Amino acid sequence: MKPIQITEPKEEDKDKELKDRMSRIKHKIIVMSGKGGVGKTSVSVNLSYALAQAGREVGLVDIDLHGPNIAKMLGVEGKGLGGSSDGGIEPVRVLPNLKATSISFAIPSSDHPIIWRGPMKASAIRQFLEEVNWGDLDFLIIDSPPGTGDEPLSACQLIPNVSGAVIVTTPQDVAILDARKSVFFARQLQIPVIGIIENMSGFVCPHCGKETAIFKKGGGERAAKDLGVPFLGRIPFDPRLVELADEGTPFVSGGNDDAPSRAFMQICSQIEDFLSVSGTKARLAEKGVRDAPV
Amino acid sequence: MKPIQITEPKEEDKDKELKDRMSRIKHKIIVMSGKGGVGKTSVSVNLSYALAQAGREVGLVDIDLHGPNIAKMLGVEGKGLGGSSDGGIEPVRVLPNLKATSISFAIPSSDHPIIWRGPMKASAIRQFLEEVNWGDLDFLIIDSPPGTGDEPLSACQLIPNVSGAVIVTTPQDVAILDARKSVFFARQLQIPVIGIIENMSGFVCPHCGKETAIFKKGGGERAAKDLGVPFLGRIPFDPRLVELADEGTPFVSGGNDDAPSRAFMQICSQIEDFLSVSGTKARLAEKGVRDAPV
Repeated sequence: MKPIQITEPKEEDKDKELKDRMSRIKHKIIVMSGKGGVGKTSVSVNLSYALAQAGREVGLVDIDLHGPNIAKMLGVEGKGLGGSSDGGIEPVRVLPNLKATSISFAIPSSDHPIIWRGPMKASAIRQFLEEVNWGDLDFLIIDSPPGTGDEPLSACQLIPNVSGAVIVTTPQDVAILDARKSVFFARQLQIPVIGIIENMSGFVCPHCGKETAIFKKGGGERAAKDLGVPFLGRIPFDPRLVELADEGTPFVSGGNDDAPSRAFMQICSQIEDFLSVSGTKARLAEKGVRDAPV
Repeated sequence: MKPIQITEPKEEDKDKELKDRMSRIKHKIIVMSGKGGVGKTSVSVNLSYALAQAGREVGLVDIDLHGPNIAKMLGVEGKGLGGSSDGGIEPVRVLPNLKATSISFAIPSSDHPIIWRGPMKASAIRQFLEEVNWGDLDFLIIDSPPGTGDEPLSACQLIPNVSGAVIVTTPQDVAILDARKSVFFARQLQIPVIGIIENMSGFVCPHCGKETAIFKKGGGERAAKDLGVPFLGRIPFDPRLVELADEGTPFVSGGNDDAPSRAFMQICSQIEDFLSVSGTKARLAEKGVRDAPV
């Protein structure tokens, strides 16, 4: 077999407009997974929503161009991106302090497939970052498609300083196998790994109340330990979450009295803690203070 | 927003070696899904294995370069592709009549992420089709990553006559939304849609025996009806299938005495029927006989 070389990350032309837009956003978090269907979009949507409910200014950008699902999960299907007086693109407002951009807001029908090769996708992602009026944000959440291809690579190379990657997995081996690749991807691109979330971890039968580890259990935590990255927590599987996602209701919007929401809110505060600590460390490092206690 | 155009499928240079290799394969089936994690690889692996058990000569090519899981699910992790005297690539033999090729057979460690943009991926997929000694096959099963991007596009454009697409979905709306895109993708590339499989359809609690529609139920069948494509059947969710996949045992290898295997064998015969009818129709059409009863 001919040797296959890894494409070295090119030094993209990070131009002024892009830098300006991104400089107004405090934290940029990319949500990744190796395998699809592990709940990456559900985590992105609920993380954005929870942060917005806590009073933060939040943007959510969907860079999964082939399977863009944030609009459906946020209950804003059918809305469109707008134009603005300065020539930029106006994102869709989900809450007064939660803005979202997705290719699904720009295509004529939800059946319409995006049959694009990589360069077209990179160009669309650039537009989403550079031309959208994100304004001043505390958080930009980037919902990525599964894998380590053009889309996450473009986002990570275009955004000057990605604050960190949240990696979502289910507990079974085949998902963990791919999640480990995401950790190595982040390391190769020098993006801090905020941690691993284990999703769909155990299922409690609504009929008898007994638990079955439908996708096994504990694999996410073991992988985190093994790779030396934080474990952010596990979210139990609950069929009501599937219903809520299909209805366009983020499950964290209903208060925190159920197990998945409680688990999720703990994950959110861990993410905020990570960013505040790493932010303080970075500021101290800028001032020449290294390894200072924070 | 600047208008975004769909990249028109280019007329690739389908050269002689590729054509020669592909002409020795009777049926080429691409297994696709819009959303990830719906069981596409599980379907590809079990379809290949079931056909091989039934005495067919089968090849399985994994074009999911970022999340290559067929080696793990077939229990042949750690094996490598070989060289052969004619300069081609020797696939991994899973059974005497089942050969497989995956990027995971060519990378140093399972943690190693493939951080490639589209053109590199297209080139690897071309090698998998053109340079692998597939020999004379009844079936080549193509396991595709989720979505409608570079990988399925390359495979469908490189292979002169793709016999058909099998589209896998779970029953919930967000998966169906994306599965519909796969149907439109196949139509746009003039590939017959063999049908839709509804996977993870209902979960029977091992403690109390009662069923819960964990990812809802019936969505795949409704979508098939709505889009006018065949519905191939539903495979119930069974946590033992997760265990078997992690252990590298195709679930159809254990006989057909459980519900998922029975469902799956019916799906396999429907696929064979579709191909035999469409093959007869194609041969009649070549002879100028149209709409003849077959």
